[in-house]
Order: sequence, then C-alpha cells, then structure tokens
Amino acid sequence: MLTLHDNTESGNAYKVRLLLALLKLDFETIQYDVVGGATRTKKYLSEINKNGRIPVLQFEDGRCLAESNAIIYYMAQNTKYFPTDAWQQAKLMEWMFFEQYSHEPFVAVAKYILTMLPADTPRRTEIPTLHEKGYAALQIMEDHLAENSYLVGDHLSVADIALYAYSHKAHMGEFDMSRFPAIDRWFKRIESEDNYLEMYNDN
Amino acid sequence: MLTLHDNTESGNAYKVRLLLALLKLDFETIQYDVVGGATRTKKYLSEINKNGRIPVLQFEDGRCLAESNAIIYYMAQNTKYFPTDAWQQAKLMEWMFFEQYSHEPFVAVAKYILTMLPADTPRRTEIPTLHEKGYAALQIMEDHLAENSYLVGDHLSVADIALYAYSHKAHMGEFDMSRFPAIDRWFKRIESEDNYLEMYNDN
Repeated sequence: MLTLHDNTESGNAYKVRLLLALLKLDFETIQYDVVGGATRTKKYLSEINKNGRIPVLQFEDGRCLAESNAIIYYMAQNTKYFPTDAWQQAKLMEWMFFEQYSHEPFVAVAKYILTMLPADTPRRTEIPTLHEKGYAALQIMEDHLAENSYLVGDHLSVADIALYAYSHKAHMGEFDMSRFPAIDRWFKRIESEDNYLEMYNDN
Repeated sequence: MLTLHDNTESGNAYKVRLLLALLKLDFETIQYDVVGGATRTKKYLSEINKNGRIPVLQFEDGRCLAESNAIIYYMAQNTKYFPTDAWQQAKLMEWMFFEQYSHEPFVAVAKYILTMLPADTPRRTEIPTLHEKGYAALQIMEDHLAENSYLVGDHLSVADIALYAYSHKAHMGEFDMSRFPAIDRWFKRIESEDNYLEMYNDN
C-alpha cells in the first residue's frame, strides 16, 4: 500500500491525492500538523524528508519521494496523464515549474496567511504583493485556457492537476476569481472527470 | 540555430548555456537587461514568454520554451544527462523542484541583492532570512554529496546542472561555502567535464 505523508490544507499534497484517485490507486494518509512543526522532527527529517515538508509519497519498500510535482510526474508515467509527445512533455514541465515558482508562492501563501494565521498576523501586509503576483500568474493561465481546453494537449495531464490544486482554492486567499471565466470552465472540466476527488468543501 | 534569450547574470540562463555546451550544440544568445524591464515589453510578452522572464530557448521554427529546468529537461532527453531508470528520473525531478522552490529563491536572490542592487537598498534587510533558508538548502545538498558523487546516480545529470548554477556563485551572495566541502568537490567534478563552460570569472 502507498502511504502519503499528508496535510489536508496543502494543495501540494492534494495534487497527489487527486492523481492517485484518478488512477484508482489505493493509498493511506498520515496527517501532519505542519504549522506545529510535525514535519521538522528529527525522525521525520531523517526517515521521510530531509527538507521537512509534505507531501511525501512512501512506497511499500520504504522508498520516499518528495516534491509534489516530482511525485505526480513519477506516478503519471505510462498513464494518460503524461503525454507521449516530447514537445508536450516539455510544455508540461514548463507549466509545472511555472506553478512552483510563479504561482504557488503567491496563490498558496495568500490562502495560508488569510485562513491559517491569526487575523492580526503582521504577515497580512504581504497580501497586496501576493495578490499582484498571484493575479499575474492566474492571468497567464486564463489567456491560455481561453484558447485551449487543457494546459497541454487536448486532455487532462499532471500539468492541469498541478495548477488546479491551489487555483481552485484561490478564493480562500481572497482572489476574485470572477475575473477568470476560462479558468472556471477548466475547473468544471476537471471536476467532471471520472473518479475526481475533491480537496474539501469550503463553501 | 538555437537562440537563447539570455542574461549573463542569471544562473537559470546559465543552466541552459552549460547543458548546450556539454552537448556541443551551437546556439546564439540575445542578452536582455532584465532589471531594466527588457523582458516585460509588449513584444517580449507576446512573442517570447508571457511570464516575462529569461531564459527562453527558441528553436529554428520559432517555438519557444521557458522555465530553465523545463528547457534542460527537454534538451537532455535521450542523452546521458537524463537517466533511463524511472526511479532515477523521479529523484532527478525531486532535485529540480527542490532547486526552484527551496534553493533558488534564497541563494539566487541573496546574490542579486548584494551584487545587482545599490549598496543602500532596503532589500538588504532580507539577507539574514535568505541566508538562513539558503544555508538549509545547501546543507541538504552537502549531506547528499558527502555520500554520493552526483545528485542522481553515478554520473552528471541535469539535476546537477540545475543545482550547480547558483550554488557555485553562492559566495557572491555572501554564503560561506567553506562550510560545504562535499559541495566543493562536486563543483570540481563538474568543472572537469569535457566541454564545461564557465558562467563567468568573478574572482
């Protein structure tokens, strides 16, 4: 059985849960109080991930793989969620690195500050900058999705899964998603997939 | 001929120059004044990269690929710099996403603030945090390289190229690299490769 070292609030961990569900693979999860330091214990750092983060996917033989996009890359090999065409593979990588560098640090962090930290946290001063940069990333997605049904090729891939995770909860970080109708249609397209698994219901 | 949309100070762009040199592929470069906004012009955003960044590798037919690690992933396919073993491919991805999320935002930004901005920039207040997080990333590399000659498998791959780029200029961001003897030996191993291309000489 696969074990996912997990946290329900993490969009990065959700990427893995979603792909495993789509692939109909059984897995168990171990939940960590990330804010409370549960992924920084000596045991976690030595046995699970030296970088002290979730998600980590652990295989039955004990091997561990960290970095959400590396995990979904690996688990998607030889499935329909990873393209066979070399140029599509390159563009998939472009979107996945875009996600970790130009999207997640703004879209995810706004959600974190506004939903996980106390209302009087001084980190609220970061919100205008996070919104500026997060909106720029979302606009790049919107422009692409206005002309394409998926980020790469003509069907769902791990590039979509990587970007969907935090984008579909961006409203929790007070992004006004009504600006992005093409992203909304893409959300619905993903959510209609067989075996789709929701992150959680925050309505 | 390949065209690299480039900036000599960018370790991200250097990853591409280094791999293309190792592969003995000819390329021309177009230099951009990134700090001055040359990658944010309407023309650049519409024709080269909507995300307004270098590096971008442009192919003879006009296709453009952004994101340094996506570029070197693509160009390394079917060469000795990308492993054939699926698990090694997964670990390579883990290192490349680690680089963009846990290493570059600290190691590269410290260099940028200390070498590219005026000496009285208020951004110098970021340096202690950048050093704390950058040292943590470098220590993870050091621990791995104390027991392994390369980041993945037993020879040079694009994982090494991705991490080498900013690590070997970390001293310019005032990281004390004498703490990391295994990283130093790994630098020398990479620098002894046939067709190695230096970023520039800052001594």
